[in-house]
Amino acid sequence: MPSPIRVCLIGAGRAGQVHANSLAEHIPGGELVALVDQNLEVLKATGERFGVAARFATFEQALESSEFEAVIITTPTFTHKSLTTLAASEGKHIFCEKPMALSLVECDEMIEASGSHSTLLQIGFMRRFDPEFQSAAARIEAGEIGRPMLIKSLTHGPGLPPPWARDLETSNGMLAEVNSHDWDTTRWLAQSNPARVYAEVANFKGAARGVKTPHFYDTALVSMRFENDVIGCISGVCPCDYGYDARVEVVGERGILQIGELRGQAVVVCTNRDQGIVSPVYRTWPERFAEAYIREVKHFLECIRTGAQPRSSGEDGRWAVLGVLAATTSLLKQRPVTLSEVLRQSRAVTG
Amino acid sequence: MPSPIRVCLIGAGRAGQVHANSLAEHIPGGELVALVDQNLEVLKATGERFGVAARFATFEQALESSEFEAVIITTPTFTHKSLTTLAASEGKHIFCEKPMALSLVECDEMIEASGSHSTLLQIGFMRRFDPEFQSAAARIEAGEIGRPMLIKSLTHGPGLPPPWARDLETSNGMLAEVNSHDWDTTRWLAQSNPARVYAEVANFKGAARGVKTPHFYDTALVSMRFENDVIGCISGVCPCDYGYDARVEVVGERGILQIGELRGQAVVVCTNRDQGIVSPVYRTWPERFAEAYIREVKHFLECIRTGAQPRSSGEDGRWAVLGVLAATTSLLKQRPVTLSEVLRQSRAVTG
Amino acid sequence: MPSPIRVCLIGAGRAGQVHANSLAEHIPGGELVALVDQNLEVLKATGERFGVAARFATFEQALESSEFEAVIITTPTFTHKSLTTLAASEGKHIFCEKPMALSLVECDEMIEASGSHSTLLQIGFMRRFDPEFQSAAARIEAGEIGRPMLIKSLTHGPGLPPPWARDLETSNGMLAEVNSHDWDTTRWLAQSNPARVYAEVANFKGAARGVKTPHFYDTALVSMRFENDVIGCISGVCPCDYGYDARVEVVGERGILQIGELRGQAVVVCTNRDQGIVSPVYRTWPERFAEAYIREVKHFLECIRTGAQPRSSGEDGRWAVLGVLAATTSLLKQRPVTLSEVLRQSRAVTG
Amino acid sequence: MPSPIRVCLIGAGRAGQVHANSLAEHIPGGELVALVDQNLEVLKATGERFGVAARFATFEQALESSEFEAVIITTPTFTHKSLTTLAASEGKHIFCEKPMALSLVECDEMIEASGSHSTLLQIGFMRRFDPEFQSAAARIEAGEIGRPMLIKSLTHGPGLPPPWARDLETSNGMLAEVNSHDWDTTRWLAQSNPARVYAEVANFKGAARGVKTPHFYDTALVSMRFENDVIGCISGVCPCDYGYDARVEVVGERGILQIGELRGQAVVVCTNRDQGIVSPVYRTWPERFAEAYIREVKHFLECIRTGAQPRSSGEDGRWAVLGVLAATTSLLKQRPVTLSEVLRQSRAVTG
Repeated sequence: MPSPIRVCLIGAGRAGQVHANSLAEHIPGGELVALVDQNLEVLKATGERFGVAARFATFEQALESSEFEAVIITTPTFTHKSLTTLAASEGKHIFCEKPMALSLVECDEMIEASGSHSTLLQIGFMRRFDPEFQSAAARIEAGEIGRPMLIKSLTHGPGLPPPWARDLETSNGMLAEVNSHDWDTTRWLAQSNPARVYAEVANFKGAARGVKTPHFYDTALVSMRFENDVIGCISGVCPCDYGYDARVEVVGERGILQIGELRGQAVVVCTNRDQGIVSPVYRTWPERFAEAYIREVKHFLECIRTGAQPRSSGEDGRWAVLGVLAATTSLLKQRPVTLSEVLRQSRAVTG
Repeated sequence: MPSPIRVCLIGAGRAGQVHANSLAEHIPGGELVALVDQNLEVLKATGERFGVAARFATFEQALESSEFEAVIITTPTFTHKSLTTLAASEGKHIFCEKPMALSLVECDEMIEASGSHSTLLQIGFMRRFDPEFQSAAARIEAGEIGRPMLIKSLTHGPGLPPPWARDLETSNGMLAEVNSHDWDTTRWLAQSNPARVYAEVANFKGAARGVKTPHFYDTALVSMRFENDVIGCISGVCPCDYGYDARVEVVGERGILQIGELRGQAVVVCTNRDQGIVSPVYRTWPERFAEAYIREVKHFLECIRTGAQPRSSGEDGRWAVLGVLAATTSLLKQRPVTLSEVLRQSRAVTG
Repeated sequence: MPSPIRVCLIGAGRAGQVHANSLAEHIPGGELVALVDQNLEVLKATGERFGVAARFATFEQALESSEFEAVIITTPTFTHKSLTTLAASEGKHIFCEKPMALSLVECDEMIEASGSHSTLLQIGFMRRFDPEFQSAAARIEAGEIGRPMLIKSLTHGPGLPPPWARDLETSNGMLAEVNSHDWDTTRWLAQSNPARVYAEVANFKGAARGVKTPHFYDTALVSMRFENDVIGCISGVCPCDYGYDARVEVVGERGILQIGELRGQAVVVCTNRDQGIVSPVYRTWPERFAEAYIREVKHFLECIRTGAQPRSSGEDGRWAVLGVLAATTSLLKQRPVTLSEVLRQSRAVTG
Repeated sequence: MPSPIRVCLIGAGRAGQVHANSLAEHIPGGELVALVDQNLEVLKATGERFGVAARFATFEQALESSEFEAVIITTPTFTHKSLTTLAASEGKHIFCEKPMALSLVECDEMIEASGSHSTLLQIGFMRRFDPEFQSAAARIEAGEIGRPMLIKSLTHGPGLPPPWARDLETSNGMLAEVNSHDWDTTRWLAQSNPARVYAEVANFKGAARGVKTPHFYDTALVSMRFENDVIGCISGVCPCDYGYDARVEVVGERGILQIGELRGQAVVVCTNRDQGIVSPVYRTWPERFAEAYIREVKHFLECIRTGAQPRSSGEDGRWAVLGVLAATTSLLKQRPVTLSEVLRQSRAVTG
């Protein structure tokens, strides 16, 4: 067997631990050799859990002291651009969590950096590696349900996101932090780029949980129209409390296809006829997409080994950011917004 | 529209009320004109509920005072033979609840009586009228899963049966009173008569509920072999407490077919991710087979109108009784028992 | 039993036959005594099928020649207002199919007519009588999933609607003719009136089927915001070809609730492991809502008997029309439209 | 990370490749260092597929030339005893596929050998490591459905087993080769040892597939009674053609619990309303128990590392063999057979 690819993990929190666990327990082909987190307590705990001695407060220190070929970035969105460009400039291959970045300008810089240094850039759209999503996509591409007409994708997450992830100033809010995957999935399965969006959002639970962030919303529905006339919607609820819920429904000219379900395990119990039958629900995202999280990192390592381009690219990440920006404009202006309008504004700013 | 067929209902208890309700609320073609029950309180309550003024303590009184073309018999099993033969001798068409009777001798007398007086005799195997069972049977008959090889049928009922229905002296116990339908269903779907049975039974809940009846059992599994070599089993649990459960699974040479499910309604709720998703269960047999109960009586009235033979005949009822007798012999003697052995004994007794 | 209420059915086509069948086969308390249809062939066929001798080309003739207490109106939408007002003026109770009418003015006249003549007016929102929808609504009202936040309702119908029903000139198009129920259901379950809508529509299949109607669409998604801040969407596909599909999903502050499913029967078959397991789908709307169609007419007759107000009122019908008008404005103008804007315009026109 | 445990795989066929793949792709903690198969073609192909250079025609050669701490035995059942006792005598830890052996004498020798050399012995009952089976077992043990009363377990396999595996002379036939897991699962979940069995078997497909083996059967149902009075059954169909099917249902005093389902993936498609909705079925056992196969080997390596006793022991394997022997006696003698009778005979033979 070839020797494992050495990986430096940047961000030792919840998402970081998912990837660390994949490398430690599920992926013989990769080795976690260095860990970076500015929160030293988290750094220590995660390092000890996975037996990683090389721990650093900054990525710069890791670059100085450790040898690795690749990085996995799981820090907050606003750090992605600088970490990615630095990693690229040092010749490291980059796996970067979603959302890719805060703006199109940042996305462009990241794509440019990895391109000019010939390093790989994969965005963490793990749904592209979920067996159900993959086989569904293949069946749609094979024409099983005909040309897509209507697509709906939802993500409901159980808990309140951290403050930075619900503030439009420091992230792009729930539509970016929770619904990133839906932007990518709908574009993937509709086989077209989104052209126009209209967003409705609401804040039902914020007050009871002491959220005072301006523009905070916990419920969103984005109506979408794609370039190929497919229409659809993305919806998000976070915190939804009842579990982690990610499902897609596509109607094509010849039929319907549904991906995913609420039920988390094929175990059914009934002990009370007034209550009814009970089955487990997916409780969390690492549980729902357990296999996809492993497979996306395996794919990343495999691409490093073979030189292939990752299936979930910087371009894909950029389109999701663009959709979020358009939807955010829509919810602030209460009107439909085209993606080309957002692109024009972005160019105007940077031009 | 033709004038409704007049029906006398014998037995105003739970099963009787199901049929009374069918006539009153769902079947324009039949009219409940007389009610018989020796329990005068039940007689009064049911009579009032369905607006039937002609109420009688005995069937003989009803025959004297009321005009009707048909009877529906829902009294305990040990009364079926005498009521059926009397009704037949008076020219009434007979719908008789399952189990048909206690012995083959009784079954033969009932078939003989209805035959010699040219009255119809239908046994209350409502599963033959359930849309799911019907379409499944049609698909098996059409060869969709090939020649049947293995069949399993179960009935689990929520509550403890009344004393007479759990005592081998006054009924044939749970395998007759609860599992009658499974005997009929397996024979129907296996497309063959049962040839050999072997029964295991157990008593788990009797003591806690103060049941002292000898040979009482609340759990049973009957292994079956049919004349055409199909093998299978019938299982019963009563009281199972958790709901009413009736399902069948058939494996044929080309595939598998499942009929029924625990879930009672396509409503899914999740409010607690530690508990999971919840759907209603079928709570009772009138709920599970609501439509089948209506349709079997409609069929009976339609047969009266057209002179056709009912789909669920005395022969069918007799086969279920024969199976029960063989299984009861098996559980008492702890060995496999052939149905031909029971037939020989029956003939020896009556010969 | 009380004598059956006499009903005149106006419209002997597909929807009319569903109601005729309910009266003939399932509802002892009502009797179909007269039939009206200007299509004499349809009139004859339906009359013969249900044994109704009193057949008329116009409602006026029926009024002259027949005795009845109630009418069921199943003719095209543009006839509802004049038939309802005439029936009311003759003191007949009115069950009118959805959509109620073409405009708010018509709705108002119908409500006014039935009110001033003290006749009942029920709109054919049969989903309010479906056991699944009813129990779900009761559970939401009881607070089981907390305050609603997000609601989605869909109706996909198998076949191309008739020309009048897909033309914005003679009907209000698919959002009215197919999605009427979704307008009513979302308002019912969101426990609030819709306030703002935004519609995206597309035409995928029209060309291949020779549809040349201007503004024709076969796919629609209406984003909704309710007065109580609930957000949601209605979606429609017609013709969807694959079956009849009607489902609702509600997320509340405490959990999620789903109503309905694609699967039409609890029968599962697998005969080919490359294809997978197969279950029946609901093929048509009379199949999916078989019980609801019976129960809504029973309810209507029961209200006539008791004097109670029907559960599905003219007000409910009017709200659905209002929603459709707002959504149609939205799709024509490509912007969100408030219902109050449409109300103002309607008043300006009639003022 | 600790260095991987070195494993020698004996048997490079289908089951062997599943374990080789687990070690190569999914288990960082183990390394496949040697491969044994007397079929040199299979040996070469599997060796090349997994990059294992050390390939041997016999286990003796592997012992001479390779260094490893553990063996995984996937060769036919009749080889298990000699391979296990040799491996144990050389101090190797043993993972042995099911069925454990052909006779109780062989099982006893294997248990004795691993015990006297202090090597671990794990039997390949991977269902004990399946997430669904595990959580279900935990819930039963926690009392969620009360004391078990009735248990049913089935295994239907798609293809005809190889000649040695369907011949009672060289294996113990389908009940051993296909249903081994059911013997273990029912004993595990019934929380008791089986006491009495009665078997019915049939041969439906043999003739068409040219099977001439005496006593061949492709369909079996074993009725069971456990020491704690739980009753139940095991059923098997092989070849069933339609997929790989493994499900369990347990009724306890307080409720019912179901494990597993036919459906292999939460993807639903409907493109034809006459056919209905379609979902993937589990096609093969490596597909159905993909995760369990990985987890059982991880557990084995973890036990080697920690010295813990494997969860699926030689005792467990021996009980399954005992059940099979009793059921085979039953089907040959057409009467119920107690396990104590088989034990007495085994002791008489060996005594």
